[in-house]
Amino acid sequence: MPEFLRLVPPKEALARWLRAFPAEPTVGRELVPTTEALDRVLAEPITAPQPLPSFARANVDGYAVRAEDTYGASASLPAYLKLKGEVPMGEVAVGNVDRGQAYLVHTGGMVPQGADAVVMLEDTQAVRQHEVEIHRPAAPGQNVIAAGEDVVPGERILEAGIRLRPQEIGGLLALGITRVSVYERPKVSILSTGDEVVPAETDPSPGQVRDINSHTLAALVRRAGGDPLLGGILPDHFETLEKAVRAAHASSHIVVVTAGSSASARDMTARVLSLLGEPGVLIHGLSIKPGKPTILGVAGRVPLVGLPGNPVSALVIAGLTIVPAIARVGGAKAAVPAGRVRARLTGNVPSEAGRDDYIPVRLEASPEGWLAEPVFGKSNLIFTLVRADGMVHIPPDVTGLAAGESVDVEPF
Amino acid sequence: MPEFLRLVPPKEALARWLRAFPAEPTVGRELVPTTEALDRVLAEPITAPQPLPSFARANVDGYAVRAEDTYGASASLPAYLKLKGEVPMGEVAVGNVDRGQAYLVHTGGMVPQGADAVVMLEDTQAVRQHEVEIHRPAAPGQNVIAAGEDVVPGERILEAGIRLRPQEIGGLLALGITRVSVYERPKVSILSTGDEVVPAETDPSPGQVRDINSHTLAALVRRAGGDPLLGGILPDHFETLEKAVRAAHASSHIVVVTAGSSASARDMTARVLSLLGEPGVLIHGLSIKPGKPTILGVAGRVPLVGLPGNPVSALVIAGLTIVPAIARVGGAKAAVPAGRVRARLTGNVPSEAGRDDYIPVRLEASPEGWLAEPVFGKSNLIFTLVRADGMVHIPPDVTGLAAGESVDVEPF
Repeated sequence: MPEFLRLVPPKEALARWLRAFPAEPTVGRELVPTTEALDRVLAEPITAPQPLPSFARANVDGYAVRAEDTYGASASLPAYLKLKGEVPMGEVAVGNVDRGQAYLVHTGGMVPQGADAVVMLEDTQAVRQHEVEIHRPAAPGQNVIAAGEDVVPGERILEAGIRLRPQEIGGLLALGITRVSVYERPKVSILSTGDEVVPAETDPSPGQVRDINSHTLAALVRRAGGDPLLGGILPDHFETLEKAVRAAHASSHIVVVTAGSSASARDMTARVLSLLGEPGVLIHGLSIKPGKPTILGVAGRVPLVGLPGNPVSALVIAGLTIVPAIARVGGAKAAVPAGRVRARLTGNVPSEAGRDDYIPVRLEASPEGWLAEPVFGKSNLIFTLVRADGMVHIPPDVTGLAAGESVDVEPF
Repeated sequence: MPEFLRLVPPKEALARWLRAFPAEPTVGRELVPTTEALDRVLAEPITAPQPLPSFARANVDGYAVRAEDTYGASASLPAYLKLKGEVPMGEVAVGNVDRGQAYLVHTGGMVPQGADAVVMLEDTQAVRQHEVEIHRPAAPGQNVIAAGEDVVPGERILEAGIRLRPQEIGGLLALGITRVSVYERPKVSILSTGDEVVPAETDPSPGQVRDINSHTLAALVRRAGGDPLLGGILPDHFETLEKAVRAAHASSHIVVVTAGSSASARDMTARVLSLLGEPGVLIHGLSIKPGKPTILGVAGRVPLVGLPGNPVSALVIAGLTIVPAIARVGGAKAAVPAGRVRARLTGNVPSEAGRDDYIPVRLEASPEGWLAEPVFGKSNLIFTLVRADGMVHIPPDVTGLAAGESVDVEPF
């Protein structure tokens, strides 16, 4: 397959690629304690087994009353109610609130039977031992959180596919749901290729370089909720690569190969990936910088990604492809959009029409807001990204940005 | 100490509180493998032990040449160079490039001694077996990544206090740095109080509620890089609370107590926190909604936080106080600002002048961009936050927002 027959816009490429994925998540499910489910993807919808709150609660410190007993009350013409007692926190009132009666209640405490409102302490005066003056009328329901006001039993409270945040952990536990079914983390095999690449812990000979991509990609996969499986460093040798990629394909949910940087090494990666099954390689070459020599495919139920060997290209393209792929095979539904930092460019940035450009920038505070300083490095070496705080995306219909323009920075 | 003598604006409160922290991080250090250091805070600056790249590399597939041999070359008047051989990936050229000579090199491969430029394959033609035509002149340095172009030996590449991202992991490993000294994760003790609160795994009796805050706060602490220590649920009993808080103070880097919701329970929390040491309680009451009954203090080297019992208030205030406190005691320097999502409000939102308001909103896509729908819940119950995708901050000098206004949403 010759390289770059047609460069595909990244947005179109991603859509075509995702359409070729299996419709359903390909990972299994597991039951985990809710307290350990942070950031996991819920595999089943959750229905409330009981109301929340489970009883009427006071929303202020004050007196639980029948609202009608307070109508017309004012500081000059108070309503006088009989104080029947206090509802201790965590306990039930010993009696009901009948006509002309009141109970002292605390915020979060139970509102006794019969009462339908709470008058704030500030609007009352305890004059005699068993009597309280009400200085302001209360409407029915006032300062009371009704049972089921947050959640009613049988209500669908969480959908399958959401990623659990601190508030969902709390909501589930509030309902006594202490275990939840979540999707397993997708296993993402990462293989590095290149005769020049050696493990990071070895001392490279002249002409050799240490493996960067395996580890930057593993970190990215972990952040995205995947489970990276490092397949090691492979020589630029067809049969060896094929064997390793087939093994990865059989044992993981996504296969990622970072190709060597030369055209022949990239071509070998594409040929190997096209052997794994239907529909095979779908995209070979993106109209994007960095990251043009990207390969996207699907073999059976497993998405395939061939990344450029350049560490910056690999990381940028991984963010655009592997992250949504992990979400998709792992059952995660579309999430909230990522936030951006509005900043002012400090330098001109050239860009070719018809190409998506991603420019690393360093953010700096200024009295007028954030400044985005482009980090140029002619060869996209790894420290280009180390020096950067985020990226600016230049869409294909824009030919460059001028110093002083306002841009949206995607923080790393 | 009477409650709310003076409500302090949250920004001022945070600044006063952080000024009372020890100047240096209070956590220890540990040596961890670089491959496992994602999101950890670097404890020592890192200096490059060697150059990156460590040898001159070709940036394209082509011919390594002496630039001067190509001057004036064109397709109609090519320069003819003697092809001495090929530099295999990961290896050293067998000889030098002398005048009138060239070596075939691949992207990422070593540029042989004597060569100072690489001519792209597209600008050449291999006519005879040991000869290559050069159709375009190369400038010295063209298509060559010089040794040390990314990093020079002795260069300060990373500062102490940065949080390691995928690119830093890659950059460190590229230099052969396989272990790094990082700060330990700050231990954050979390104590829940309230006679009405029972553990999430128990069945509450009427009047009781399950503990939410311990778990939402633990999740938040984990996300912020801290190590939550759950101190359990304490009754509203002074001596019991004091004993538990003293034990937490002695064994953790930050102490958090979620107070009962009633005024007396909050007051008890403030009194206990003020016993732990100097300077003691610094702030009692913030001009913020939700979260007015917040307590901030420092005892010795340990920051103290008293949070409102309401789960939404607790989570909002924790984000504003515990997250920066974890960064500070844990040695993390100011990071990149969090991104925002620009959206259009779908409803009016009231706000009092002189108060910071945080409004939960749900984000919805529309053809005109994101819409932010306020999630109102009169009592800030936990599912208010479950239904929300982020928060809108209304600063104290703004009295409410109108439907249709453009707002910056802080995604959760």
